[in-house]
Amino acid sequence: MSRAANPGYDTELTLSGERFTARYRIAAGTPEEAEAAARALAVEQTIEFPAELTAGRIAGEVVARVEDLAEREDGAFEAELSFAVELVGGELTQLLNVFFGNSSLLPNVRLLRVGLSPRLAARFPGPRFGVAGLRRRLGVPSGPLLSTALKPLGLSPRELAEMARRLAEGGIHLIKDDHGLADQAFAPFEARLEAVTRVLEGTGAVYAPNVTAPGEETLRRARLAREAGAGAVMVAPGLVGFDRMERIAREVGLPVLSHPAFLGGFVPKGEGGIAHYALFGQLQRIAGADAVIFPNHGGRFAFTKEECAEINAGLKDDLAGLAPAFPAPGGGMSLERVPEIRALYGEDLIFLIGGDLHRRGPDLAEAARRFFAEVRGTA
Amino acid sequence: MSRAANPGYDTELTLSGERFTARYRIAAGTPEEAEAAARALAVEQTIEFPAELTAGRIAGEVVARVEDLAEREDGAFEAELSFAVELVGGELTQLLNVFFGNSSLLPNVRLLRVGLSPRLAARFPGPRFGVAGLRRRLGVPSGPLLSTALKPLGLSPRELAEMARRLAEGGIHLIKDDHGLADQAFAPFEARLEAVTRVLEGTGAVYAPNVTAPGEETLRRARLAREAGAGAVMVAPGLVGFDRMERIAREVGLPVLSHPAFLGGFVPKGEGGIAHYALFGQLQRIAGADAVIFPNHGGRFAFTKEECAEINAGLKDDLAGLAPAFPAPGGGMSLERVPEIRALYGEDLIFLIGGDLHRRGPDLAEAARRFFAEVRGTA
Repeated sequence: MSRAANPGYDTELTLSGERFTARYRIAAGTPEEAEAAARALAVEQTIEFPAELTAGRIAGEVVARVEDLAEREDGAFEAELSFAVELVGGELTQLLNVFFGNSSLLPNVRLLRVGLSPRLAARFPGPRFGVAGLRRRLGVPSGPLLSTALKPLGLSPRELAEMARRLAEGGIHLIKDDHGLADQAFAPFEARLEAVTRVLEGTGAVYAPNVTAPGEETLRRARLAREAGAGAVMVAPGLVGFDRMERIAREVGLPVLSHPAFLGGFVPKGEGGIAHYALFGQLQRIAGADAVIFPNHGGRFAFTKEECAEINAGLKDDLAGLAPAFPAPGGGMSLERVPEIRALYGEDLIFLIGGDLHRRGPDLAEAARRFFAEVRGTA
Repeated sequence: MSRAANPGYDTELTLSGERFTARYRIAAGTPEEAEAAARALAVEQTIEFPAELTAGRIAGEVVARVEDLAEREDGAFEAELSFAVELVGGELTQLLNVFFGNSSLLPNVRLLRVGLSPRLAARFPGPRFGVAGLRRRLGVPSGPLLSTALKPLGLSPRELAEMARRLAEGGIHLIKDDHGLADQAFAPFEARLEAVTRVLEGTGAVYAPNVTAPGEETLRRARLAREAGAGAVMVAPGLVGFDRMERIAREVGLPVLSHPAFLGGFVPKGEGGIAHYALFGQLQRIAGADAVIFPNHGGRFAFTKEECAEINAGLKDDLAGLAPAFPAPGGGMSLERVPEIRALYGEDLIFLIGGDLHRRGPDLAEAARRFFAEVRGTA
């Protein structure tokens, strides 16, 4: 093709050469199909433009590079792509777009894990508290932590506060809102925040109000929480975007508990989705979560034991020096399962018990004390 | 169970009785299993708490009601649930949480369609421009609209503006940023906005810069776009959350083009996900999109013709009086496909052509003119 017919698009910018990575599973029949798919993915995630019409640095550096491609044991392929750090412009929304924007729509591609370059790790320093910092805040230097939620929806701030008081009496370390508590007339955010923080003052228990809210309100509520003396906040990045969670972590100065609501679309199904390791592990840390709630295996959400082990690893494995974060598996907690759960996740673990605590009898403080003994007594 | 052993949690609030709905597909073996799953779903999406420990209005009104349950032709079941409007508290994040928060994590549940109550429709009035308003803004009272993107990543604002100029010369109505254009050093948002709006002044073409960005920056960029004279904005709700798109629609006063990046996790896979009708149709209108980009069938993203027809219907069917929005299918556009695409979507359609336009030769204005003739000439 003549020069006249080919614009040979190039960039005026000199690139630094610094690159970050992502690893994908590609369902393809043959090595040739896998290679074509990996190259198409490299284009899709960057220029989304005919590669043959580019030249120079756009063709060589702006388009993602396929660094590695290998067949997996399950018959699919695994491709490692690298990207110029300049593609991100320092924005988490764009980082996620590069990792899995358009490719989230491809039927045969799964994001498995991500790798940060030094500049990205400096820009996204990860959990501000992490495992060590959250332990300091809760005053629990070792062993598993206990958490539960204020619920059901419909209770008033006064009733939720009374519930919180009894849970704190029973030794629960971290008392969070049910994720359905937003700013409803029966329990407005500010009234709830004030009532619950007041009763927990001096108890040692930490309250994590749910600050998931529209627009800038998320950040405003997180700041209100800090001012009111709540020790942490909870937010659902599936609903507000990972970037708003990251801003809370960076700007508010409270530990951040991540809730999985509306994130389930990305759980691997068919050949697509984001692997548990990245979805509930790495991406959460990049976005600043200090603890991550997810459904424990054996409960109603059908996560497997292997997937939960992956999450645990994704929260604790080295990731460009970012602090590790707590796994907070929820659902299906029972006395018999305590040893097995501790064996799976290790000591750095938040036991999240929900409605089951209320099934243990009318005295919530007593039920919490028994839960405490079950979990911490086996230490 | 004695009263002492059962707290019988109830709410102090009197509920209005106004309810909204959602319809789910539930994969279950038998009618009995389906009924149990539907009841569990009703609890999961509202109180997430042992229903037997509640009473009065919480048991009767706060917990979702299973209004209908029927077997489908595909052997699964379809359940219609209704919810008290008070659960939402007027917040889109919480509305989405009620529709599909925790249930997004269930392996056997798919959100099929949603229904708004009058109070919700007043709070979420939908597309501000819609089909009619966007046509007025573009000065195209009938027939399909033409759109394309400024790309590839790496070009400078000056080069992108030159490209926009030639596309406008060729008759393209709506010129959008590539969704990978954020705020990178090679094309910073404000410099790009200024350069492109300047060359398009007086051409009749409308520019939709990509305002997808972290935190409050999304809204700030949308306001900058309005001040600079851009005629529309593009945003990816998968990256920033549907609520930030809704704020732009409500507060900025420009037509909103929705991009599907990072939304693919929710595309139905296995038994889960959100049906195309709701994901690319209804939810987008509730969040204020005037036009919705999605992969056309027959392209690289494997959407079927039926799924695309569903999207078209979800964008145009009656939804509590919300305005209809434009479908903007992209990918795989070619001369031969024009009649078939128009037959599928009807006249209210935005033809989105991407890199293929650039493959048609070095003269972009000429390529755009031919694209215009192909699409509009068949009117």
